[in-house]
Amino acid sequence: MQIENIIITGRMYRELETAWPEGAGKQVRFLAESEVSEADMAWADAYVGFKPVPAFHLESVRWVHALGAGVDAFVYRKPWKPDVLLTRTTGSFGRKIGEYCLGHMLAELQRHEMFARSQSDRSWRPVPPQSLSGSRVTVMGTGSVGQELARMLQALGVQVSGVSMRGEKKPYMDHVYPISRIGDAVSAADWVINTLPLTAQTDNLFGSALFARMNGAGFINVGRGPSVDHAALLEALDKGHLRLAVLDVFEEEPLPDASPLWQRNDVRVTPHVAAVTSVEEALSGFLDTLRKLEAGERELANRVDPARGY
Amino acid sequence: MQIENIIITGRMYRELETAWPEGAGKQVRFLAESEVSEADMAWADAYVGFKPVPAFHLESVRWVHALGAGVDAFVYRKPWKPDVLLTRTTGSFGRKIGEYCLGHMLAELQRHEMFARSQSDRSWRPVPPQSLSGSRVTVMGTGSVGQELARMLQALGVQVSGVSMRGEKKPYMDHVYPISRIGDAVSAADWVINTLPLTAQTDNLFGSALFARMNGAGFINVGRGPSVDHAALLEALDKGHLRLAVLDVFEEEPLPDASPLWQRNDVRVTPHVAAVTSVEEALSGFLDTLRKLEAGERELANRVDPARGY
Repeated sequence: MQIENIIITGRMYRELETAWPEGAGKQVRFLAESEVSEADMAWADAYVGFKPVPAFHLESVRWVHALGAGVDAFVYRKPWKPDVLLTRTTGSFGRKIGEYCLGHMLAELQRHEMFARSQSDRSWRPVPPQSLSGSRVTVMGTGSVGQELARMLQALGVQVSGVSMRGEKKPYMDHVYPISRIGDAVSAADWVINTLPLTAQTDNLFGSALFARMNGAGFINVGRGPSVDHAALLEALDKGHLRLAVLDVFEEEPLPDASPLWQRNDVRVTPHVAAVTSVEEALSGFLDTLRKLEAGERELANRVDPARGY
Repeated sequence: MQIENIIITGRMYRELETAWPEGAGKQVRFLAESEVSEADMAWADAYVGFKPVPAFHLESVRWVHALGAGVDAFVYRKPWKPDVLLTRTTGSFGRKIGEYCLGHMLAELQRHEMFARSQSDRSWRPVPPQSLSGSRVTVMGTGSVGQELARMLQALGVQVSGVSMRGEKKPYMDHVYPISRIGDAVSAADWVINTLPLTAQTDNLFGSALFARMNGAGFINVGRGPSVDHAALLEALDKGHLRLAVLDVFEEEPLPDASPLWQRNDVRVTPHVAAVTSVEEALSGFLDTLRKLEAGERELANRVDPARGY
């Protein structure tokens, strides 16, 4: 595939313009999301951004490259044209999400809040931390992110189970359940971590029925906000099915002021930071994909199946 | 070596009595530290505890087994009788210390304090976390604790250097410096972690001269309190040689009320909890050593050289 005219948009379009290599030999329009016009869309062979802008359509572009790991903004509940290629940024999201999850897990196990309070009271209360090693974690999603997270957990002695559509065996996971057996996958878990993309199968997946199968688990959502029913989550915390929720993604972002999640002691809210695309990763991911496309390579590891949604 | 009469003392003596296996075939006196008398010491072949009690002496015991990992309470600046065997508990201290260190490192990198403040303000401030992978950590001490800590860090992509007396190459460490080059070992470190035992070489090791070689490092002390000069540490924080100190051990424990460490925002105080001996580990470590001794095994991995001090 030969690509000549490229729209690059999204929050980092200026940084990408600054970092763009000389001699890349393409016509590129670096535009704020609000600036992309119908005329730009008609001109472009390729569209690069985190999500579709208002003027976005599929009539003339032949390739869409997502700057984030998730592509739901492009394909979930939206029509796609089968001959338009969709790729995404992969990079080091798994490693970043692994560090995010480990940080929050260890903060609880190591009783950081309690010791911070003790310190401010000048009080010496030696309560031993709890062990991460030997604990049981169920990772929802067995793609590159889920696998890297599992690798990191397993290296620290965690028993890792996975959940995927079909339950195929994957590296670093002691067992992988098909999504049809998701309840069994969570019932013995000390932690349940969602890394799943947003699709028809995962929209509202974490609702009353699934939370009711958990037994005092900690829940971490680094997947997508709409996969979690907040009312069900709060009820599960109140009933003890969950002991803690760590949430980085929300159906509405920024999380609205009125959300009850902000003020819960058993909920940690972070502002969608667990796996932020860096300018370097965005650029190298895009240029690498462009090079492979123009060289006619058939196998693109970061290609998305728009019908499947990930 | 045949052992018949055993004193078991220390904070967990009652739990050890409860867990003591039937048919172990020994005379054991389970005693609070304050209860151990001269007569008990004269009667015993073996003394098991965290530290020497007031009545402790080496005249009749042939074996001393420390319930903790550190033996400085028995041998540092104290005489020892060469024919008395000294062993210690090893167990899972490395794994525990690894989890403690990782938890505090990730809490800083993942900006837990900032996001907790944002949550209480209901404010959405997406500042990306910093990466653990690729950071440089210098581990002081390359024994079983230092090696397990290094293994865990390396699995997470950290560049690990070690420091030991002689600088011998060790697993999981990219480089090991001899203690004579300790300044070089810390100058490029993002984190410096002390796991060293307390000996004449490590008493007050972390003083003005060594801190002055650090360049904005985070410092974690999970070794022994007297290895750190607190006045020099506070000065290093004020001057920016250190950006953060995480301290689990102190020269005087509990840390006195008057210590300025309690109220520093750039110091985390925890009450000597990073590697607590569990009853199970204490018992199995002791019984395993006893079995090996009575079987005449020459190589005891947990044997301490009293002259060397670790």
